[in-house]
Amino acid sequence: MSISAIAFDAYGTLFDVYSISQSGDKLFPGKGEALAQLWRSKQIEYTQLRTMCSMYKPFWEVTQDALIFTCKKLQLDLTLDAQNALMGQYARLDAFPENLEVLQQLRASGMKLSILSNGTTHMLQAAVDAAGMQGIFSHLLSVDSVRKYKTAPEAYQLGPDVFGLPAKNILFVSGNAWDVCCATWFGYTTFWVNRHDAPLEELGVTPHGTGRSLRDVAGFIEQMQ
Amino acid sequence: MSISAIAFDAYGTLFDVYSISQSGDKLFPGKGEALAQLWRSKQIEYTQLRTMCSMYKPFWEVTQDALIFTCKKLQLDLTLDAQNALMGQYARLDAFPENLEVLQQLRASGMKLSILSNGTTHMLQAAVDAAGMQGIFSHLLSVDSVRKYKTAPEAYQLGPDVFGLPAKNILFVSGNAWDVCCATWFGYTTFWVNRHDAPLEELGVTPHGTGRSLRDVAGFIEQMQ
Repeated sequence: MSISAIAFDAYGTLFDVYSISQSGDKLFPGKGEALAQLWRSKQIEYTQLRTMCSMYKPFWEVTQDALIFTCKKLQLDLTLDAQNALMGQYARLDAFPENLEVLQQLRASGMKLSILSNGTTHMLQAAVDAAGMQGIFSHLLSVDSVRKYKTAPEAYQLGPDVFGLPAKNILFVSGNAWDVCCATWFGYTTFWVNRHDAPLEELGVTPHGTGRSLRDVAGFIEQMQ
Repeated sequence: MSISAIAFDAYGTLFDVYSISQSGDKLFPGKGEALAQLWRSKQIEYTQLRTMCSMYKPFWEVTQDALIFTCKKLQLDLTLDAQNALMGQYARLDAFPENLEVLQQLRASGMKLSILSNGTTHMLQAAVDAAGMQGIFSHLLSVDSVRKYKTAPEAYQLGPDVFGLPAKNILFVSGNAWDVCCATWFGYTTFWVNRHDAPLEELGVTPHGTGRSLRDVAGFIEQMQ
């Protein structure tokens, strides 16, 4: 199977959503990890509920809603300053350390690279800039243009549309198990960056490739060609 | 506003999904609560992913898939005997203690009562029988007939269709915050049984009524009439 383009998920794949736990710990000592975990799961839940109910709202706002809920649930006093600090941190999440080098190698090999994310274009551009990834991606595809979050088919369709390729000729790379499983259902060739050695979701679908970091993507592509 | 029918969610509203933690503890000492929590959240996640991706599979099977994933994630050795024991327990979950009396009172007052649930008709009938709730409900509405889980509008539409009433004239009662919020978006008059004193979801929508147990439903209806 010929792969000539790659669509990367952003949050949890290129950018470490749990890196926020350090900022969380400074504001709420000992609570950073619980905050990062619940914030992330609530953020995803809200995107999915809003998609199923046709109540779209941009990812920046959903992320803020999820933060507010998380602090209420964990009984943390989220002042406006703390909220601004955490949201500001979310706009420039740490990139995983190997990413930049791997992305540069993939691009040098002639592969077309894009991001396909729940984040708004503005959020994605800020994260790419903060990570020094300018010039790497030909497209920053945001579900904001279709007002449906992953895992709706309209969101995944952005990749085939922009590359003019069938989904099976695009490699979809995600660190999120739910995302990579649903992208496989959609028809992409898929690679799961299983950074935390999690079990495969019991959805009756298996990503085409799995590795522990973005470094494993290049080897997978060679093997597929 | 005139309420003449009530649609109850089943799992987490009439039947206690966390009561399974006791059976879990017998099989996996000290792990029952973690098992019950992750099993439940994975079960809901799988229903939502399958609905967004049009990959419906009946709730009994999704529940079993979620159990298998949960045990892998928690590194619990799920033998076939243990799986059958836990699934068997799921088929006859404890009802919350106040339910039967409240339901009998509501029915005696002339209210039409139904269940509207992700569960299959077979699961709902078994749970109703185990709880001694035979003869209480005029309809056991399962999303199985539309092959989309809550919170898809097709699932919520089952209530208005069967009662021949606009959603606003049906009271939708759920112990699940996500369910009651999305039912409010759909158009039902809604009541949240907030048994665990959770904060309201930050979805920009508020149930019409909130209480701590099913007992509070009757008072809410009187106040609405």
